[in-house]
Amino acid sequence: MRSLKKTVLLAILVSVVLVLALIHSWPARAYTTVDVWQQLAPVVERNVEDRLPLLDHQLSNIPFHVKTSVASLLPRNGCVCEGESGGINLPFVQLLFPRVSAHPLHTAFNASDLGEMKTRRAKEYESFQRRLKSPADVLLIAEANSPLQYPTQGLEVRPLKTTIIPGLALHDAPRDHYTVSLTATLGTINVAAEVDAVKIKGDGEMHMSLSSSLLPNLNRQLQFVTYTNTLFHPSTVDTVQFKTEGHEAAFSIKIRHGVTPKLYNTGSIGEYNVSALVTIATKTFLRYEKLQNLIDSIRRYYPTVTIIIADDSENPQTISGPYIEHYIMPFGKGWFAGRNLAVSQVTTKYVLWVDDDFIFTAKTKLEKLVDVLERTTLDLVGGAVQEATGYTATYRQTISIEPGEEDGDCLHLRRGFYHVVQGFPNCVVTDGVINFFLARTEKVQQVGFDPRLARVAHLEFFIDGLGSLHVGSCDDVIVNHATKIKLPWVSQSESEKTSFMPSAGFCFKLSSVGGLWRTQMWKALLGGRNSIS
Amino acid sequence: MRSLKKTVLLAILVSVVLVLALIHSWPARAYTTVDVWQQLAPVVERNVEDRLPLLDHQLSNIPFHVKTSVASLLPRNGCVCEGESGGINLPFVQLLFPRVSAHPLHTAFNASDLGEMKTRRAKEYESFQRRLKSPADVLLIAEANSPLQYPTQGLEVRPLKTTIIPGLALHDAPRDHYTVSLTATLGTINVAAEVDAVKIKGDGEMHMSLSSSLLPNLNRQLQFVTYTNTLFHPSTVDTVQFKTEGHEAAFSIKIRHGVTPKLYNTGSIGEYNVSALVTIATKTFLRYEKLQNLIDSIRRYYPTVTIIIADDSENPQTISGPYIEHYIMPFGKGWFAGRNLAVSQVTTKYVLWVDDDFIFTAKTKLEKLVDVLERTTLDLVGGAVQEATGYTATYRQTISIEPGEEDGDCLHLRRGFYHVVQGFPNCVVTDGVINFFLARTEKVQQVGFDPRLARVAHLEFFIDGLGSLHVGSCDDVIVNHATKIKLPWVSQSESEKTSFMPSAGFCFKLSSVGGLWRTQMWKALLGGRNSIS
Repeated sequence: MRSLKKTVLLAILVSVVLVLALIHSWPARAYTTVDVWQQLAPVVERNVEDRLPLLDHQLSNIPFHVKTSVASLLPRNGCVCEGESGGINLPFVQLLFPRVSAHPLHTAFNASDLGEMKTRRAKEYESFQRRLKSPADVLLIAEANSPLQYPTQGLEVRPLKTTIIPGLALHDAPRDHYTVSLTATLGTINVAAEVDAVKIKGDGEMHMSLSSSLLPNLNRQLQFVTYTNTLFHPSTVDTVQFKTEGHEAAFSIKIRHGVTPKLYNTGSIGEYNVSALVTIATKTFLRYEKLQNLIDSIRRYYPTVTIIIADDSENPQTISGPYIEHYIMPFGKGWFAGRNLAVSQVTTKYVLWVDDDFIFTAKTKLEKLVDVLERTTLDLVGGAVQEATGYTATYRQTISIEPGEEDGDCLHLRRGFYHVVQGFPNCVVTDGVINFFLARTEKVQQVGFDPRLARVAHLEFFIDGLGSLHVGSCDDVIVNHATKIKLPWVSQSESEKTSFMPSAGFCFKLSSVGGLWRTQMWKALLGGRNSIS
Repeated sequence: MRSLKKTVLLAILVSVVLVLALIHSWPARAYTTVDVWQQLAPVVERNVEDRLPLLDHQLSNIPFHVKTSVASLLPRNGCVCEGESGGINLPFVQLLFPRVSAHPLHTAFNASDLGEMKTRRAKEYESFQRRLKSPADVLLIAEANSPLQYPTQGLEVRPLKTTIIPGLALHDAPRDHYTVSLTATLGTINVAAEVDAVKIKGDGEMHMSLSSSLLPNLNRQLQFVTYTNTLFHPSTVDTVQFKTEGHEAAFSIKIRHGVTPKLYNTGSIGEYNVSALVTIATKTFLRYEKLQNLIDSIRRYYPTVTIIIADDSENPQTISGPYIEHYIMPFGKGWFAGRNLAVSQVTTKYVLWVDDDFIFTAKTKLEKLVDVLERTTLDLVGGAVQEATGYTATYRQTISIEPGEEDGDCLHLRRGFYHVVQGFPNCVVTDGVINFFLARTEKVQQVGFDPRLARVAHLEFFIDGLGSLHVGSCDDVIVNHATKIKLPWVSQSESEKTSFMPSAGFCFKLSSVGGLWRTQMWKALLGGRNSIS
């Protein structure tokens, strides 16, 4: 009887464990089903009408049946952040039932300040939009059955320089006389060579016309048409009109400097020379013992790699040693300010970010991370951080911003990744990673760590990097985390927080005209738990 | 007799002065005439052929006459840096007869290292080019007389999201049956709504075809075609093929995140609150007295503006005071490292760069510079620096890079500017300015000061900023320069050098595969006069 009881108890225990494991690994629901799709048909129609100046209104009486599975994917006017409401706030419930949380951020402001703050921010946002707008984003449609042949993409000229406009031709039906004209706004049109029997008018001006009774001659002449940028701007676009009787076309010419490469000396060709390729960067505050442990552990494996330390402690101690660069900051200047300082000083191709309470082990093979960046187009690759308990975290996060209306865009953060990196089975592509990563110095410096984020911040760097950084994460390069284990619901220090984030994801409404003052973001999230300037 | 002699002498003196003034203000020769144009006709033809896949070879027998004035402006294969050779190297000759100097930079390397260095750099440059290449730069030509109507510009979708493809239509001659197809490579094609009498095949796949016997219905269906990005990449372009019998077209869809605005709190709306808008940044090295004079002079006019000081002196002294942030760096870390550090810490909308030996006066009205940046799209605006002699310099430089071949691009630096800023008669647009400027913090942080430039550097920042920074220069905001007058041919400190640059310009051959190790550039220029790591 006793052995039966034991077996039953064991069976129950095993089942419970299995169920827990099953629940924990249950894939997060497809995110699109959380949002509510309203008024499908009119939105689809409106979407189309808004974006289709040449909409053939003759067709509007032809009926259609909305295909919901596709139409629901289209951007709507406004976005909705809906979290799963309710649920008990017990510790392990979060582990077992990861939730998506929704946070309206406008609650970060005092009610009295809110009005003026919104006005000020609206003004700044408006300036931003004006400066961002480009003629290269205008919707252009190629007309059907037009005798005009012209380039639609790929034209570029350096500021104040000249280029041939390739691909221009007129394929008209036979007639007595053929005429074409070209009009620019930021430059002039000319010809690099002249062809007999073609009359040129306005060469060297913003509007030039060519005419001939011989179509082959006209087309030969069109092979020598040039564009010269005359109104200086370091980065802009000119839209050229190309016309003939009854037809017109428009195409863009990018006016911009070439990209000057920033190249780094990688050390001798052969095996990866980590000291030549990598600088280790960290920020420290009031814990020199942990910092020294980190340095000692690094030196065991990489005796000559440069370590850059940004330090905003109150009474800074001296940290010395070969290949150590110690930077003293004003007391408490801040977390991201320190990170920005450290990376601003890196002179190698790659920078490795570590927190000051990490410990290098034999599994912390930087060569593996270097290999990923050397052989892919990834800009940044995260590793894994192992806690004292053995729990290892890569903290992969996907990030996307869904455009909204005046009340703000929706920022979606979800744990997970997009796909595996080809050739690197232990690595995936994602948008955000844990605070242990190797990255191209140039890219990290361009994105930057916003020095206004003084206390708690992590994903802001990856949010700022959206569109610039191609991010990867590998789970086979592991660094140890020296800090003792803490319970997830207790207030945590900066790096600890990143290791205990069991929620499936967050959705933030970026309040008011699509932007917000940075320091307010996390203040709202944490309900004022951290003092932020 | 004596008074006649005096008058004659006076007349001669006046004439000499007039002649000197005339020579000094003589406009620099138009730069294009310095370069030599060789083999015009074949280059023009080759230019055209290289870039024109659809060149109608039937036309190649039609002769043309090269129009030299235009053809000479076209980019050639390779670039040439030619300076004016000869001339005596007396001090004032440079002032009187500004020369254009040409510097081949490959001379910066030891002959023994050169081979391997070139190989290493070629490899890095190749990686750079691979990462830079985009399908959005491919030359696409719109076919004439095609029944296809389609968008040629302006399509954009966020990664893994869906968009309607606007503007698709078929305007075919009447026939029994109409068929079109769309093919993508980084995503799938689908329809958001279905229309009667149209057969859809491959919806939700990379290749979809639509067919119907009723053209209006087919065109109605084409209004609901969607594109969904399925292969994740944070910033890329998909080229879609749109085909019907006998005709095809291609167009691009940009796949990228939106730009998240970085907005700054500008202080209350009304007059410019310089303390809220501006942070003053500087770097100091071994001259605390000058630095203190600078700070005292700033405080006379701006008592609460934040001053950030990057300091790599050997035995750093304490600099204290309200609104002062002092950063201690490793001894001699370097000039641009210090600049990069200082700007990495700025939390206001604008940053004002000053050298540590400047003195603010009543003419140093920062509000004027703020006004320029608030009311134009300029990113950076320089002021003027006045020497003890009264000589005031704005050091305006235009910069352009002319593409070359394997032996390198040509970097052209010339004193001067492009045009006056509308609404600001004392301000002009240029590419580089003196080391006294106000700039948008975000843009300066993005461009960055390359920390590898340890000793002498100035224009590198503006070279790095080409294409990103829209630069202005105003001569009515003046700061004083505290350092004593030095003769131009004597070795100068960093900031002094910028005030004595009488040459009309420089042309550098950026040696070898279009890039070079940064530290070598100025080493070559100065003939090794400064030690650079």
